[in-house]
Amino acid sequence: MTAFFARHRPMLDDAVQALAARGFWTPFPEVPSGKIYGDTAKADGEAAYAALIGRDFALPGHPGQRRLGAEVSPWGDALRIAYPAADTPALIAAAQGAADDLAAASVEQRVGACLEILARLNRISFLLGHATMHTTGQAFAMAFQAGGPHAQDRGLEAVAVAWMEMTRFPETARWVKPQGKAAPLVIDKHWTLASAGVSLAIGCNTFPTWNSYPGIFASLAVGNPVIVKPHPAAILPLALTVQAAREVLAEAGLPADAILLAVDEPGAEITRQLATDPAVRLIDYTGSSTFGAWLRDHARQAQIFAEETGVNSVVIAATDDFDGMCANLAFSLSLYSGQMCTAPQNLYVPQGGIATDRGHMTVDQVAQGLARAIDTLLADPKQAAGICGAIANPATRDRVAQARVQGRVIRDGTPLLLAVDPDAPVAQDECFGPVAFVIPCANADDGIARAAGLAARKGAITAALYDTDDARIARAVRAFARAGVNLSVNLTGAIYVNQSAAFSDFHVTGANPAGNASLTDTAFVATRFRRVMWRRPATAA
Amino acid sequence: MTAFFARHRPMLDDAVQALAARGFWTPFPEVPSGKIYGDTAKADGEAAYAALIGRDFALPGHPGQRRLGAEVSPWGDALRIAYPAADTPALIAAAQGAADDLAAASVEQRVGACLEILARLNRISFLLGHATMHTTGQAFAMAFQAGGPHAQDRGLEAVAVAWMEMTRFPETARWVKPQGKAAPLVIDKHWTLASAGVSLAIGCNTFPTWNSYPGIFASLAVGNPVIVKPHPAAILPLALTVQAAREVLAEAGLPADAILLAVDEPGAEITRQLATDPAVRLIDYTGSSTFGAWLRDHARQAQIFAEETGVNSVVIAATDDFDGMCANLAFSLSLYSGQMCTAPQNLYVPQGGIATDRGHMTVDQVAQGLARAIDTLLADPKQAAGICGAIANPATRDRVAQARVQGRVIRDGTPLLLAVDPDAPVAQDECFGPVAFVIPCANADDGIARAAGLAARKGAITAALYDTDDARIARAVRAFARAGVNLSVNLTGAIYVNQSAAFSDFHVTGANPAGNASLTDTAFVATRFRRVMWRRPATAA
Repeated sequence: MTAFFARHRPMLDDAVQALAARGFWTPFPEVPSGKIYGDTAKADGEAAYAALIGRDFALPGHPGQRRLGAEVSPWGDALRIAYPAADTPALIAAAQGAADDLAAASVEQRVGACLEILARLNRISFLLGHATMHTTGQAFAMAFQAGGPHAQDRGLEAVAVAWMEMTRFPETARWVKPQGKAAPLVIDKHWTLASAGVSLAIGCNTFPTWNSYPGIFASLAVGNPVIVKPHPAAILPLALTVQAAREVLAEAGLPADAILLAVDEPGAEITRQLATDPAVRLIDYTGSSTFGAWLRDHARQAQIFAEETGVNSVVIAATDDFDGMCANLAFSLSLYSGQMCTAPQNLYVPQGGIATDRGHMTVDQVAQGLARAIDTLLADPKQAAGICGAIANPATRDRVAQARVQGRVIRDGTPLLLAVDPDAPVAQDECFGPVAFVIPCANADDGIARAAGLAARKGAITAALYDTDDARIARAVRAFARAGVNLSVNLTGAIYVNQSAAFSDFHVTGANPAGNASLTDTAFVATRFRRVMWRRPATAA
Repeated sequence: MTAFFARHRPMLDDAVQALAARGFWTPFPEVPSGKIYGDTAKADGEAAYAALIGRDFALPGHPGQRRLGAEVSPWGDALRIAYPAADTPALIAAAQGAADDLAAASVEQRVGACLEILARLNRISFLLGHATMHTTGQAFAMAFQAGGPHAQDRGLEAVAVAWMEMTRFPETARWVKPQGKAAPLVIDKHWTLASAGVSLAIGCNTFPTWNSYPGIFASLAVGNPVIVKPHPAAILPLALTVQAAREVLAEAGLPADAILLAVDEPGAEITRQLATDPAVRLIDYTGSSTFGAWLRDHARQAQIFAEETGVNSVVIAATDDFDGMCANLAFSLSLYSGQMCTAPQNLYVPQGGIATDRGHMTVDQVAQGLARAIDTLLADPKQAAGICGAIANPATRDRVAQARVQGRVIRDGTPLLLAVDPDAPVAQDECFGPVAFVIPCANADDGIARAAGLAARKGAITAALYDTDDARIARAVRAFARAGVNLSVNLTGAIYVNQSAAFSDFHVTGANPAGNASLTDTAFVATRFRRVMWRRPATAA
C-alpha cells in the first residue's frame, strides 16, 4: 500500500531539503525536449490531445447525471469534449463517501499516492501542454511549462510542506511526571490526524493547474477529499489531473472519489452552490476580488485560501543598463499578453526623468525606450505569438479597449502602453490583460510611496524597482515589505518579475489584499487538518 | 539588545526539544514552595498583593484618560484597585505607534524579551497566585499553579512554536538556475517577516493568564502589538503581566506600548469596540460561543483564535478499579467547582449497569459510588474549599439552580449530581459550573455515540472513557477522534481528565465547535505573520 511512498521517498526528501535551502531545485524538467521526456513524447502528446477532441472524457466510476463541456480554444477550435457532470449533492455525497477511508489511511499512503500522481502527470506533460494551450491561450512552450512541470513543482511543494507538518510531532509519546518520592505518573499518549472536511478547489481560466495544484495536493495529502471545480473555459487540464489522480488513488487502495471533477458551463456555474455547502470546509480560490468577497460573505463555514486581484507596479528610478531594463520589462509586459497575476501594470517614472547609462532620459524617452523594446521583441510574428499567446477571455479585450481611451497611447497593440496621470482612476485598480500605464510621479520616492500604497490598499503580488541608489533601494525594500509585496530589484536578462519559482519564492505573501494564501508556507497546510489525542495510564512495564 | 535572548537560549532550546518529544517538561516548578521560589517568596507574594489593594495600579507611560476597576474577590472583599483606562482610539493609536519598532526588531530581540517576561512572571508567581485567587475564586494552590507556572508554560510554549516557525526558512538564499552552456542565472533573495497588525487578547474570568498567555506571547514574539482586554472581574493577573512585560520591553529597547491593558467595568465593556476596529487583525478569545459567534459576525477584519463552549462527556462502560474511578471523577467534578472548560459534564452509564471489580453495578449504584466519592473528597471543609474554590460569577449559581429542577438529585451541593434522561435538554448544552448529569444510555456503544455526537455538534474539549474491552476502547478512540475531541481512558490516581499539560497535550483540537485554536500547534502561530521577499541579480563574486 505504501510502495508509491517508498518509490518517491528520495524525491520527497529532496523537496523538503529544497524548501529549507530555497535555492533552485526541481525534479520536473521545464524543457519540452524529447531527450528528457522521451523521443516520442512530443508526438504522443499531440496524438493524445487529438484523441480527446470531440469525445466523451473518461472518468470511470465518477458520478455524473449528464455530460457537459463547452470549451473553445482561444486559438480557434471548439474542443467538443463532454465531461461527466454531477450536481452538487451528488458530488458532496461522493466526497463524503470517500472521506473516512482517506482519513484512515496512513500519512505515507496518502503522500505516496500524491507523489505518484505528480510523477504520472509529469509523464503526460506534453498532453497537459496542449490541454493548457487550448484552454488558456498560452503559447505551447509556456503552456507546457506552466501547465506541466511548473505546476507539478507547486503540487510537490504543497505535498512536501504537508508531509513536514503532518510528521512534525510524534504519533505517540510517553509522559512521565516525577512525584517526589512516590512513583511517577506515566501516561501513554497517541495522536491521530483529523481531516477538516471536504475541500473545494476553484480553478481559474489562465493557470488552471499551476494555481490549483497547491490546494488540491495539500488537501489530499492531509486527508481531505477534494472537489475540483475548473473554470468552465479551462476544464481539460484539471480533468486530466483528476483522471490521473483517480487511477493512482485506486491503485493505492484509496477511494477514487477522494478527488472529483465538478464540471459546469459558462452562465450556469455551480460554484456558489458548491462553496456554500455545509460539508465544504476548505476552499482554494484564484480569481477576482469581487467573487472572493462573495465567498467570504457567503461561504462562512469554510476556510478560504485565496489569490485575488492586485495592482503590480514598477518604479523606474534609475538604471545603469537602460537597454537591459527595457528588454526585460518588454518581455514581462508581453508574456501571455499580461494575463498573469504577476504581470506589471503601473510603471512609475519621476517626472524630471531618470539617470541612465545612456544619459539622462525624460519620462517620454523612457516610455519610448520601452515601446521600442516591445516592438523589437515582437517584430517576428511567430515569436510574438509564442510570447503573447492568445487572449483567454473576450472580457479582457473589452477591458483593454475601455482603458485605451483613458490615457495617451504610447504604443498601440498588444501589449498596449498608455501614459496616464498618477491619480487616473484606471491606474488605481487591476486592469487584467495586455495593458500597462506609464505614470509620471514627483520623484522616485514618490513613485515608491504610490506603488507601495496601492499594493497595501488594493493588493499586489509583485513589485519591481530599477535604481542605482543603495539608500533609496533600502527605503524601497522597507516600503514594499510594509505593503506585503515581493520586490524584484534591477532585473535584466532572462529572469522576470512575473516569474515565481517553486521551492524558493513564496508566491503571494498573504500580507496584502491580493491574497491570504502563500504558496507554499506553513499556514497553507497547517489548518487543513488537526491533531486529536487519546491517552491512558501506561501499563506496568 | 539581545542579551535576554542569550540568557534564555538554553530554556528556549529545551522547550523546542520538549515540543518535539511531547513528554513531561517544564522550567517553571508548579509547587508553591519556599525551597524553590525562595524562603521569603510566600510572604513577599502576600505583602505584594496586600500593597496593591485599594491603590492606583502603576503602568508608567501607559495611555489612560481615567482610572477604572471594580473587581470583587469571589472570596469576599472588593479589590479597589484603579487601573489606567484608555478608550479604544487611544489604545489603537498607542499600539500602532509601537508597531513599526516592534516589527523592525530582530527575531532574537523579540523572543528574548518574551522569555525574560516569562522568567520575571515566574519570579512573582506567589503574587500572581493571590491575584488569580482573588479574581477567579480558585483556591490558592490551584491559583498559584494555573495563574503562575502552568500559564507561564503555555506562554513559553507559544514563544517556542513562534520561534520555530519564524526561523523555519532562511533569511537569505542564493538561487542558481543552470542555463545549459550559458552562465547560470543567479539571484540573491532576502526575506523579512511582516507582522499581521494589532492583536487583541480577550481574557476570561476563570483562567485570566492561562488562557490568554498563548495568544499574547505568540503575537508579541512574531511582532504584533497586543492589546490585552481582561474580563472586568479578573483584571489584576493580566495587569501584573502587562506591567512586567512593559518593563522588559523597555529594557530590551522595544516600545513598551507593544503591550497595552484595556480596562473596563462590568456593564460598560469595550470589547466590541476594540474587536471591530479595522486595525485589529488578530483576536484571541476565550469565552462563550454566543460572544464567539458575535465576533465572527462582526470582527470580520480579524483572524479569530477561539476557545468556546462545549459539552465534555465521560462514558462509564466498565472498570476494574471502581473506587479509583469514582475518586478520580470526584476530583474532576469538584475541582474549582467545575468552572473549567475541561471539566466533565455528561456521565453516560449503560442502563443495564456495568461490570466492575466490585461486581455488577446498576446505574444507580454507579451514581451513588460517585456521590460517595465526592462526599469523601470534600468531607473536610478546609480541603473542600481548597479543591472547590469559590464561584467566580453569580450567573454560575443561577445556571446550576436552573439545571437542578431538570433532573433527579443524586447529590446536592457543590458539585451537584443529577440523573437526567439521554435526551434531556439540559444535557445537550454546556452548563458551566458545579453540576454533572448521570445519563443512562442503551449500552456502552450508545454512550460513546451520544458523547461523540454531542462533541461533534456542540463541541467538547475533553472526553473520558472507563472500559475494560479493548475492542470497544478502539471503537471509542475512532469515534472521539472523528468528533475531534481528546480522549482520556481509564484515568485513576493523580491524573485527571481536566488537566492539559503544556509541551505535551494540545489543548483544544480545533476540530469541533469548542474552538478553532489549539494550544499550541503550528496553526496557532503560522498566520500571525507573513514572509516578504526582495530579490536581485547577484553581483559578480
